[in-house]
Amino acid sequence: MKTVALVAGRGALPPMLVRAVKAQGHRICVVNLKGHNDAPIEPPEVDAATTLPVGAIGKALKFLEAQGAEEVLFAGNVDKTVWYRDLRPDLQALKLITNLPDGGDDRILRALTDMLEAKGFPVGAPVDWLPDCLAPTGHLAGPEASAEVVGDMEFGLRIAKGVGALEIGQTVVVCRGCVVAVEAVEGTDAMIARAGMLAKKGAVVVKAIKPQQDRRLDVPTVGVETLAAMKEAGLRWLALEAGCLILEPERFRAQAKALKIGVYGR
Amino acid sequence: MKTVALVAGRGALPPMLVRAVKAQGHRICVVNLKGHNDAPIEPPEVDAATTLPVGAIGKALKFLEAQGAEEVLFAGNVDKTVWYRDLRPDLQALKLITNLPDGGDDRILRALTDMLEAKGFPVGAPVDWLPDCLAPTGHLAGPEASAEVVGDMEFGLRIAKGVGALEIGQTVVVCRGCVVAVEAVEGTDAMIARAGMLAKKGAVVVKAIKPQQDRRLDVPTVGVETLAAMKEAGLRWLALEAGCLILEPERFRAQAKALKIGVYGR
Repeated sequence: MKTVALVAGRGALPPMLVRAVKAQGHRICVVNLKGHNDAPIEPPEVDAATTLPVGAIGKALKFLEAQGAEEVLFAGNVDKTVWYRDLRPDLQALKLITNLPDGGDDRILRALTDMLEAKGFPVGAPVDWLPDCLAPTGHLAGPEASAEVVGDMEFGLRIAKGVGALEIGQTVVVCRGCVVAVEAVEGTDAMIARAGMLAKKGAVVVKAIKPQQDRRLDVPTVGVETLAAMKEAGLRWLALEAGCLILEPERFRAQAKALKIGVYGR
Repeated sequence: MKTVALVAGRGALPPMLVRAVKAQGHRICVVNLKGHNDAPIEPPEVDAATTLPVGAIGKALKFLEAQGAEEVLFAGNVDKTVWYRDLRPDLQALKLITNLPDGGDDRILRALTDMLEAKGFPVGAPVDWLPDCLAPTGHLAGPEASAEVVGDMEFGLRIAKGVGALEIGQTVVVCRGCVVAVEAVEGTDAMIARAGMLAKKGAVVVKAIKPQQDRRLDVPTVGVETLAAMKEAGLRWLALEAGCLILEPERFRAQAKALKIGVYGR
């Protein structure tokens, strides 16, 4: 048995991880990020918990020490507006930020990870706790695609890998050999909505893992919300690189079937 | 003296080319694309003209033959909705289209160019007629940029080249080492509007030439409309790869100064 600490943002992933860590017989303590969940995760659901604002790194470190955390996991979405607008960094956070090159949450997270590991808190990969949630290859859910759509999935995966290598984003929409939309900072759902207005029926949403991605920090993730955004936009095909994370996979597959959205792993 | 034929879409470029060809002492005849200009270009402004719908390639060929065209130029925007929704191809256009792989106007234009050249009508590059309109390197117009913004221009050019190599689009918006938005089929102005909602003040619009671009068919182009879209979006910096086309360059520079938008060639 070891003690795992989870820094929990918004969405379905943190509760999934709590269940997975407990199911495997370990202690789990949680740092809820303030303002990122209507219902923070608290005992008795977990062994210990605190709620801290983004930027309160000093207090978070004290909590990890007091709990004797042996592995730290980061999971769930963090509002980008916090990084850019509402961040109130404490002394530890300031030390981190002042040594950073410019340019986005990825670099902040990587610096934070390095700092934690230097202080003796190894950072783990959430996906290692959720092997049943990783997209395999082949037909995963919903209707089966035509050869033409499968061709677009291959094309889109190549484009998404190229876009990821440029550190732009993880997701693209393609249609008959054309790139309809590329995700940058607007987020997947806004990009899907735009693509729905621009694309023909057969368009495919493709999510890929950046070649240089740190899998401890940000694995491309889909869930029922992704399917809802696609349905709203009129997009019917989703391709995931193998290894992407599917939140609540059983519910996801049932929803894909209900919404008639075909999902493939590549 | 030779006879130049211009296939004219929407915007300021076709009239600029007419003036340039006439100023250099040549005959110019024009195929106006139907529905693409409130005022088609007609004699006495040019030596001969016809107005044809997109897709009437047979009639266009007859016009080129009758006029003895020795060089054909394509210039001006063509509504993408025409390709996808309203195209009524004649027999010649059908021959062209049925031999095409899927995937967008670039391939259609390339096939059309090949067909014209095979029939003895060489296709020229509009930019060769407009040497004064090509972006040089250095500060071109408006306020001068800080070192930080110049750094983002270099970064953005590298990203835009990568995006172009993937055949996605020509334009990106970057801010402090982050990619804010990437243009795919939505068009530059829509992408600029989105970036304005997502980016901080210092963001830079960057336009680059695709590595594999056919310069006879589609050179990245900016004009006063680009500046107006940037002003509307609150974006203040524009970087162009050297060789991009600036429509009405004197008016463009005056407008950049008036709107306080700094423009650089890289």
